[in-house]
Amino acid sequence: MEASKSRTTVRRLSDKAILDFDVVQRILAEGVVAHVGIVTTEGYPVVVPMAYAFVDDAMLLHGSVASRLMRSGSEVCATVALLDGIVVARSLFSSSMNYRSVMVFGQPEIVADDAKEEALLTLSDALIPGRVGNARAPSRTELRETMVWRLPVTEWSAKVRTGPPVEASTDDLALDYWGGVIPLQVVAGEPISDNQGRDVAIPEHIQQFVRDNE
Amino acid sequence: MEASKSRTTVRRLSDKAILDFDVVQRILAEGVVAHVGIVTTEGYPVVVPMAYAFVDDAMLLHGSVASRLMRSGSEVCATVALLDGIVVARSLFSSSMNYRSVMVFGQPEIVADDAKEEALLTLSDALIPGRVGNARAPSRTELRETMVWRLPVTEWSAKVRTGPPVEASTDDLALDYWGGVIPLQVVAGEPISDNQGRDVAIPEHIQQFVRDNE
Repeated sequence: MEASKSRTTVRRLSDKAILDFDVVQRILAEGVVAHVGIVTTEGYPVVVPMAYAFVDDAMLLHGSVASRLMRSGSEVCATVALLDGIVVARSLFSSSMNYRSVMVFGQPEIVADDAKEEALLTLSDALIPGRVGNARAPSRTELRETMVWRLPVTEWSAKVRTGPPVEASTDDLALDYWGGVIPLQVVAGEPISDNQGRDVAIPEHIQQFVRDNE
Repeated sequence: MEASKSRTTVRRLSDKAILDFDVVQRILAEGVVAHVGIVTTEGYPVVVPMAYAFVDDAMLLHGSVASRLMRSGSEVCATVALLDGIVVARSLFSSSMNYRSVMVFGQPEIVADDAKEEALLTLSDALIPGRVGNARAPSRTELRETMVWRLPVTEWSAKVRTGPPVEASTDDLALDYWGGVIPLQVVAGEPISDNQGRDVAIPEHIQQFVRDNE
């Protein structure tokens, strides 16, 4: 890739740059938390972790209407990074991480009142399929208190590193140190029921989510 | 907590605000990746995931001297978020995440040339204890190519949510839906050796890391 002034051009380690939107879609579909950066009115950066869903090539995010972040209406950078492993090279310098990351730039659209409920249901069901229908839907008051952002994924930059260490030289490769990858993964554990004196069975959609993330 | 203009005052959901530096130290010691936000010269936010180590109440980060981010010398917000679970409430509105997060604000100090090697060794060994001594140390050229940041953790803001769902009302609690928590955890898998035709046993410090993260 050529260096350019565009913010969506990966400048460093550009062998890891991803230009394929299919890959971006898969990363954003797998992630749960985006780190959303804004510039405050005072001009300093703030990075807030937020749950999100990726639906119809857009990120849906939500928060309180009282939130400074949600009301800011400013440009954001929403970054999703999936850490897949620690790359242990024969040299410290060539050691690295395996990861898949996407930065999405833009100004989020505030979802209109009459579309908010649908967006929130979509968001809930994207996180855990089956949630809608297995929980009380938002009330009017709750909808009023909630702001939903839609950030279309049009301006983005992605990087992926996979595979074994890449040593700096054949000399390094010949060293007697171990090289390899320690895989890392986010896994779901056994659900903890909040029974409150009753005994509600763990529903199928929750069990399915756990199986999908074992 | 009182609302204030300070950027280290948690404004929203302030019941989750953490004021205890011990908790912050534990979160930063457990994390591996920080999401580092900067403001570009053009004035927009960029959030970059970076491996870090937490040593002597400071975050150590490193990158290439050619990196725009590393050279910027600007104020950053480095956010570390550990996702501990999905909180499944009887209502969608009260559903949430269990997490522990820290935002660290400040202008990173660029570690001086004569202290860079030690900082990099410290950083490597903090990520996987035992790495130094089990890998080739950086060469002079590699040190020249690397920039190390030290971000003292003095100005910070932290939030923690733990435990079962908190329903909006006793009516919600009485609903026939399941409520509870799906725990999430980052786990290490079996190391994948990059044997390159030889057979170097997986060293003890790597095995220990995997045991510590099972």
